[in-house]
Amino acid sequence: MTALAQRIAREFGSPAVVIDLDRVERNIARVQAACAAAGVANRPHIKTHKIPEIAKMQRDAGASGITCQKIGEAEVMSEAGLDDILISYNLIGEDKMGRLAKVMERATVTVAADNPTVVAGLPRAAELSGRTLHVVVECDTGRKRAGVETPAEAIALAKDIASRPGLSFAGFMLYPPEDAMEITQKFLDQATAGVREAGLEPRIVSTGGTPNVANLGRIKGATEHRAGTYVFNDRMMLACGAATMDDLALTVVGTIVSRAAPDRGIVDTGSKTLTSDTGGLEGHGLILEHPEAKIAKFAEEHGFLDLTKCNDRPKVGDVVRIVPNHVCVVVNMVDRLVATRGDEIVGELAVAARGKIA
Amino acid sequence: MTALAQRIAREFGSPAVVIDLDRVERNIARVQAACAAAGVANRPHIKTHKIPEIAKMQRDAGASGITCQKIGEAEVMSEAGLDDILISYNLIGEDKMGRLAKVMERATVTVAADNPTVVAGLPRAAELSGRTLHVVVECDTGRKRAGVETPAEAIALAKDIASRPGLSFAGFMLYPPEDAMEITQKFLDQATAGVREAGLEPRIVSTGGTPNVANLGRIKGATEHRAGTYVFNDRMMLACGAATMDDLALTVVGTIVSRAAPDRGIVDTGSKTLTSDTGGLEGHGLILEHPEAKIAKFAEEHGFLDLTKCNDRPKVGDVVRIVPNHVCVVVNMVDRLVATRGDEIVGELAVAARGKIA
Repeated sequence: MTALAQRIAREFGSPAVVIDLDRVERNIARVQAACAAAGVANRPHIKTHKIPEIAKMQRDAGASGITCQKIGEAEVMSEAGLDDILISYNLIGEDKMGRLAKVMERATVTVAADNPTVVAGLPRAAELSGRTLHVVVECDTGRKRAGVETPAEAIALAKDIASRPGLSFAGFMLYPPEDAMEITQKFLDQATAGVREAGLEPRIVSTGGTPNVANLGRIKGATEHRAGTYVFNDRMMLACGAATMDDLALTVVGTIVSRAAPDRGIVDTGSKTLTSDTGGLEGHGLILEHPEAKIAKFAEEHGFLDLTKCNDRPKVGDVVRIVPNHVCVVVNMVDRLVATRGDEIVGELAVAARGKIA
Repeated sequence: MTALAQRIAREFGSPAVVIDLDRVERNIARVQAACAAAGVANRPHIKTHKIPEIAKMQRDAGASGITCQKIGEAEVMSEAGLDDILISYNLIGEDKMGRLAKVMERATVTVAADNPTVVAGLPRAAELSGRTLHVVVECDTGRKRAGVETPAEAIALAKDIASRPGLSFAGFMLYPPEDAMEITQKFLDQATAGVREAGLEPRIVSTGGTPNVANLGRIKGATEHRAGTYVFNDRMMLACGAATMDDLALTVVGTIVSRAAPDRGIVDTGSKTLTSDTGGLEGHGLILEHPEAKIAKFAEEHGFLDLTKCNDRPKVGDVVRIVPNHVCVVVNMVDRLVATRGDEIVGELAVAARGKIA
């Protein structure tokens, strides 16, 4: 593998972000099988790869549709032919409704909402497209991010959605903390009972998260799951037990550029490549050739290596492979991934939805 | 200004990264004047903006050349006509020498080196281009990044450079910690005396850093300064006193998308927009309309707002302007900046050297 990394550095430049398509396919198949075993649909989140070709691999393996976080991602994916998209985000503003309407002309679209201001804006997209917009109520069962905090709010928002022209109440979207299955079940049961009393049916109950793949089947009433990171995995997924070393499908190829002192060095992957997302872990990545080396801190293009615990220390010019802490943000730094299969380079994939923040 | 931010969100989508060209011009003029007053050349670092048009504004204001961190940046800048470039980075590898040679055909190029492995590779670029490659020795006077740690190593490396075909020893490159002026002077004096004994002359002594603009003139023998962040400034520059509120030329326009509980909210600028670079500061940005609000943590597209100290709390749909902690990494997240002058939108600028990690 080091020979391959050296070849990649030579042919594509260092640093380079590299995926192994054999591993990607295995990861896709494994989570698809886990969803099937639990009797839920698989709606992978494309925020991790942002590559239409990989979304199509997920679809062809059995995914029922995809999840996007921003409308810019949904634009790219729907233009590439992905035709069933959940945008798991509160969309606000006249400009976004115009863009959403265009996506709705190419794909079946469901969006999330957690407040009446968002819901009040959505009919405009239905009106502009002449199509029904499906809306799930985002519910928060402990993550304290977006999402209504009580079943009562969820029920009220469901009724609000159902009362609006062009909108269809589609169900509930959850992203439960991994240790909050009971709380989540209780929330969902109450919210479901409440909307049924109002004559509404949650035909979608969407759960999320790669670590929650291990919890599939534990939420009764769940109909689909949204996992993203599993397609590549990272050091966070290793740390929480959601992936093994064999499931790591993405590495960053970097080069040691300085060894100014015995106990330290510099690798050419700084915060503009690996990003400062720590994922709560010590150090900024795992160097496969030197696991005892710590990427202790960053400048923009410098990774500061602490080699004090390293017996076999890298020298200037050595090419290394790094598993990033958080893979989703690393992919978003580059325009292209180098694609490999085992020891072969098979091409490049454009990260077509990179940087689609709006 | 809030009316302008709303207009930007409507016309360009939210989030959007916005600069004020009037402020950019003032910042450029101020640092140019500071360099002139200290009798040193100004060689701004383009890593902050990555935009050839802004590099040309810096050149037209009097800069002697520019600094790039990666060869990919130098490619973009030299193709745009910038013809005097310092690449302040150890360049390694046959592929990079080929690319460097092409840049040398379009521009006068100086590169940095801190070790013999890097120096040994550089003659290939001179050979391929048929031109002289100027090389400065990177010296570390306390930052513990790249750079030789002793004057003796600097002298040895200078001699090594001078002995190689196609290379010209050009001098020393420093990035001194702001509190290390005496140590830096002593290092420089010893290194200079040593190379002079060997018949070499450091015609370039390059210092760096926006905070070190305040130290201009304090290093005797310095000939040029490399500052980057000053062109836009950020919350880190505010915190260290290198910029005032009036010097802030870049803000991120974002929208409040959720207020699921009284004490918290979500803004649509997460780690894929503002990045997780903290710069050592508490919170992830300054919201100009709600300075007491804290961007407490991130998901990729969610900024988690802690509003406990906020009397006037934002509501869903509100458009806000955020000063990022570290501006250089934020610019690198987007393909385009929205350019304004005062209350007018004057266009967009492509971040042409974005993502050039290799």
